[in-house]
Amino acid sequence: MLLDQINGPQDLKALTTAQLVQLAGEIRQFLIEKLSVTGGHLAPNLGVVELTLAMHYLFNSPDDKFIFDVGHQSYVHKILTGRKDRFDTLRKYKGLCGFVKRSESEHDVWEAGHSSTSLSAAMGMALARDLKGESNRVVAVIGDGALTGGMALEALNHIGHEKKDLIVVLNDNEMSIAPNVGALHHYLGKIRTDRHYHKAKDELQQLLNKIPAIGGKLAKTAERFKDSLKYLLVSGILFEQFGFTYLGPVDGHDIEQVLDIMRQADAMPGPVLVHVLTVKGKGYSPAEADSFKWHGITPYKIESGQVVKAVGPPVYTDVFGDMLIELADKDNRIVAVTPAMPGGSGLLKFAEKYPNRMIDVGIAEQHAATMSAALAIEGLKPVFAVYSTFLQRAYDQVVHDICRQNLNVVFAIDRAGFVGPDGETHHGVYDISFLRHIPNLVIMMPKDENELRRMLKTAVDYCDGPIAVRYPRIAGLGVEMDANPQSLPIGEWETVRDGDSGVILAIGPMLQVAEEAAELLKREGLNVQIVNARFIKPLDEQMLLSLASEGKQMIVLEEGSELGGFGSSVLEFYSLKGIYGLPVRIIGVPDVFVEHGTIKEQRQEIGLTAERVATEFKTMLPRRIKRVTGQQ
Amino acid sequence: MLLDQINGPQDLKALTTAQLVQLAGEIRQFLIEKLSVTGGHLAPNLGVVELTLAMHYLFNSPDDKFIFDVGHQSYVHKILTGRKDRFDTLRKYKGLCGFVKRSESEHDVWEAGHSSTSLSAAMGMALARDLKGESNRVVAVIGDGALTGGMALEALNHIGHEKKDLIVVLNDNEMSIAPNVGALHHYLGKIRTDRHYHKAKDELQQLLNKIPAIGGKLAKTAERFKDSLKYLLVSGILFEQFGFTYLGPVDGHDIEQVLDIMRQADAMPGPVLVHVLTVKGKGYSPAEADSFKWHGITPYKIESGQVVKAVGPPVYTDVFGDMLIELADKDNRIVAVTPAMPGGSGLLKFAEKYPNRMIDVGIAEQHAATMSAALAIEGLKPVFAVYSTFLQRAYDQVVHDICRQNLNVVFAIDRAGFVGPDGETHHGVYDISFLRHIPNLVIMMPKDENELRRMLKTAVDYCDGPIAVRYPRIAGLGVEMDANPQSLPIGEWETVRDGDSGVILAIGPMLQVAEEAAELLKREGLNVQIVNARFIKPLDEQMLLSLASEGKQMIVLEEGSELGGFGSSVLEFYSLKGIYGLPVRIIGVPDVFVEHGTIKEQRQEIGLTAERVATEFKTMLPRRIKRVTGQQ
Repeated sequence: MLLDQINGPQDLKALTTAQLVQLAGEIRQFLIEKLSVTGGHLAPNLGVVELTLAMHYLFNSPDDKFIFDVGHQSYVHKILTGRKDRFDTLRKYKGLCGFVKRSESEHDVWEAGHSSTSLSAAMGMALARDLKGESNRVVAVIGDGALTGGMALEALNHIGHEKKDLIVVLNDNEMSIAPNVGALHHYLGKIRTDRHYHKAKDELQQLLNKIPAIGGKLAKTAERFKDSLKYLLVSGILFEQFGFTYLGPVDGHDIEQVLDIMRQADAMPGPVLVHVLTVKGKGYSPAEADSFKWHGITPYKIESGQVVKAVGPPVYTDVFGDMLIELADKDNRIVAVTPAMPGGSGLLKFAEKYPNRMIDVGIAEQHAATMSAALAIEGLKPVFAVYSTFLQRAYDQVVHDICRQNLNVVFAIDRAGFVGPDGETHHGVYDISFLRHIPNLVIMMPKDENELRRMLKTAVDYCDGPIAVRYPRIAGLGVEMDANPQSLPIGEWETVRDGDSGVILAIGPMLQVAEEAAELLKREGLNVQIVNARFIKPLDEQMLLSLASEGKQMIVLEEGSELGGFGSSVLEFYSLKGIYGLPVRIIGVPDVFVEHGTIKEQRQEIGLTAERVATEFKTMLPRRIKRVTGQQ
Repeated sequence: MLLDQINGPQDLKALTTAQLVQLAGEIRQFLIEKLSVTGGHLAPNLGVVELTLAMHYLFNSPDDKFIFDVGHQSYVHKILTGRKDRFDTLRKYKGLCGFVKRSESEHDVWEAGHSSTSLSAAMGMALARDLKGESNRVVAVIGDGALTGGMALEALNHIGHEKKDLIVVLNDNEMSIAPNVGALHHYLGKIRTDRHYHKAKDELQQLLNKIPAIGGKLAKTAERFKDSLKYLLVSGILFEQFGFTYLGPVDGHDIEQVLDIMRQADAMPGPVLVHVLTVKGKGYSPAEADSFKWHGITPYKIESGQVVKAVGPPVYTDVFGDMLIELADKDNRIVAVTPAMPGGSGLLKFAEKYPNRMIDVGIAEQHAATMSAALAIEGLKPVFAVYSTFLQRAYDQVVHDICRQNLNVVFAIDRAGFVGPDGETHHGVYDISFLRHIPNLVIMMPKDENELRRMLKTAVDYCDGPIAVRYPRIAGLGVEMDANPQSLPIGEWETVRDGDSGVILAIGPMLQVAEEAAELLKREGLNVQIVNARFIKPLDEQMLLSLASEGKQMIVLEEGSELGGFGSSVLEFYSLKGIYGLPVRIIGVPDVFVEHGTIKEQRQEIGLTAERVATEFKTMLPRRIKRVTGQQ
């Protein structure tokens, strides 16, 4: 095995091209075997084996800066930079991160997880290099899908203006996570089919060389025409318009072609765009056949490509997707909006049934949000389905366009709370804190999958402004489903367990934690009331006033930031009402980023457990006797 | 006066072209006169007189949807839609809004204030129209500067893909607020100078028509070549690449040309980009000569163009700009980053002295933030100067790229708090709420302009991660300035007034309100302690514990959202420490959007006044005798 001898990029330098080809095969085999056990982003990594080999072979990481957009395609980079022995721990708690991680290696110079940041990073590193008078290379690798993200286009524009030396490798696999959308995609598709442009260019040069003989005025025109030839014929018109030198496209699985084009790029001044055509899942037929499914995969059998299917209740994502169809059947105002995540958001069936009412805008959360605002102005009912962490990209649009204009946009916020192996870049632990202070917005979270159906019905019926329902990346509880879910009264909570020793206000999956805590406390003779605080905003003011008048000690439990979160809103409520003295304890996610692992491990790490809740509850007890005073 | 007869768009329809020209002149005169008294966005509106006339002349608002990007160029639209009599109240409290406002008129169909939203809005409205089977026009007007914003590019991409019927008018005045930046700008510049492309196209067509005679292989190549001609020669290559039909450019001040091109655009299916060249400030020579200064202007003398200059202490913005130069003189790691606001952010002198260390990325807050992250990774000290409200655009980048990687980026957040006449789209009342929950971030706010200098020194010296200083859009207090400002200890507050009746924690300009309240209370025999809570994060835990042990009643006063804001963090602190029973009252901006007016009126409207603070303080008094218990 050649791979056994590769412990760092320096070990590549002496290899022959034939050996690099052999090594590429061994790396593929390694990835297919390791990921069959751990799961992970198989298809994207199989697509960049030769490209990553070429980069480490030709350039000198970490002096040269390699920036991987999103970073889920960095496994090959990790293998080549001394981390191959840690792949059994991939995406596990305290194990190898599934993205680029600066603390893991000096070769990891830029972290991501969200899309479309790499060009801005490359620009910053190139600017810094020049200001410091240094001379290292900067190489960004970005997929064609990520290129539709607004910030990548902002960066493209700025780079083209500044003309800094840097290389952008466009890893064009015609696939972001879903087949990507938009004019840029069409443009790239056109390039793919016009590979003979180079030949055409040569022929035309010959042709035009003859034209001056025609003479006079036409010759002059032709001269200007020749200047523009490269724009037309090298196929990179768009990138050249943005100020890049465009090279390619080449077959990203032909190591010689890749090496050759990277050498060319390296020799050129200014920004260079290298267009590399790759196949997601390359070298593993199940993944090549369905690169969508194999983008991020759970453990599988290598021979059959069979994946272990989860049994049990449906995940919230699917309950959302099914319910949206039911609602759309009866209400033709409903349209679904997704930023390139129709699969992840459970919208594939909706897209099949209502293709005209399914709007996939590509990786473009800002546009998705603001376009939804306009759809709402015109009387439609847009349901913007988005992961909590990706909604961060549209914060300003939620404030400025949707909530300020008080428009009937429905937010279906998936992946609320911890998400497990994707880790700190993907947790949905901030949405309450970044949404709650925006006027006009209603925010809900269901206690189970049936309540999710009710909340979607509520959201679609609601006509007084924007409304959000957030739900976790887990399976439901297997509860019975209403055949005809009814709307919930806005701002009304429900007591799900009675008790007189105090109360736990909880949201979503934290209700199970609260129940477990209540059981622990029951053993000690304490009866705890549990409230399903399903409206995060507006609060159930009547219930809060009633709880205050009972003087109950209170724990507010949430799988979200303790800072500015739901618990914080309860404290504010009492403060703003002039009600002081009530013991209210927040238990949520503290002020740290929580790394990858299972959701259970993540909750344990920061103390979102029944044991912790029970302990805190008891610690509060001496204060329980205090009576509350205040205006109400 | 023709203008006297125009009370709605219908009154335009019967006018002759000559009358439209006359009317354009009258509107210019109207704007110049009215704004000389009220102030406002003069230059942008003088630039779109003919364009707006043409739109209302040809199309039928409000059935046809007019969308103005940013919306500060909607004055002509307001004049033509029945609001000319209200211009004396422009940007005044309860008066005419300086932006598009749906509640003002049925002709105002889309509101903005932030840049680059119009194409997403247009796309949403076109999609909705088609889904509803209607046939109205959708016309967006966007400036060349706004086009560099990522979300506009996301929308461009999506529109090009979907091919919906809509018209985008590119109002190309070579100027956003500052001269804009980027490859797109160069591209537009190129178009301006190549107006003879149309002629060249005709000539080349003739030429190529002759080529087949040359025969065979070359002819075939030429054929393919001809297909691509329009891309090369119509000049709109970039837009055509994105899937638009490109028309123009035309002189935006020649009403016949504008009418003609708009008619052409109207007749074409699919998305059409109409390129209109305009001059900011057209028709008023002082504004034409310095359209940057006249973008948004305070009252002026019409003849001389002389603007009344403010006297008194320097504004915070200028103190920032001067201090940054002082710091940069001694520390060559410092670079300034601005998203197209070098003037508004007080960086013009810095740019002059350190052009290489001044990075203007255009309207591109996301890219600015993430690029700053990369600059910090490479050891530089980026100072990202940005308005609070525009930082909303980069929320995800602050979380995911800067704070998660814990990088030494300095945020200079201007326009924190109310901003006066720009109103609800521009207030800086959410940044505490959207930043405070992000791990690793330090947030400061100075009590006066000298403390701003100290805080900038603190920020530049700080090496443990990101740090922000926020400051208001007002003048300083005229305090003495340290010659050599020293760093502040992180997280240390200061008592600025002693008292034993209770305490007011205040930040920034709210310290003056607290002082006034304390004076009112002093008359009633109450002595109030006032604390300058200059670190919003981290809190001064020692002081908070000490105040708790004294059992002092507490008001937390901030010109920011009461939800998830600074006051909320004080409540959380005590809750998380298990300290209950302390009377803590938040006074800040309640859960509403506050419209335009003066800052004083805005504070009064929501009760950020000394009288209110004093009253609330007294209301709390009966509870002051209660003692506090808790773990510490």
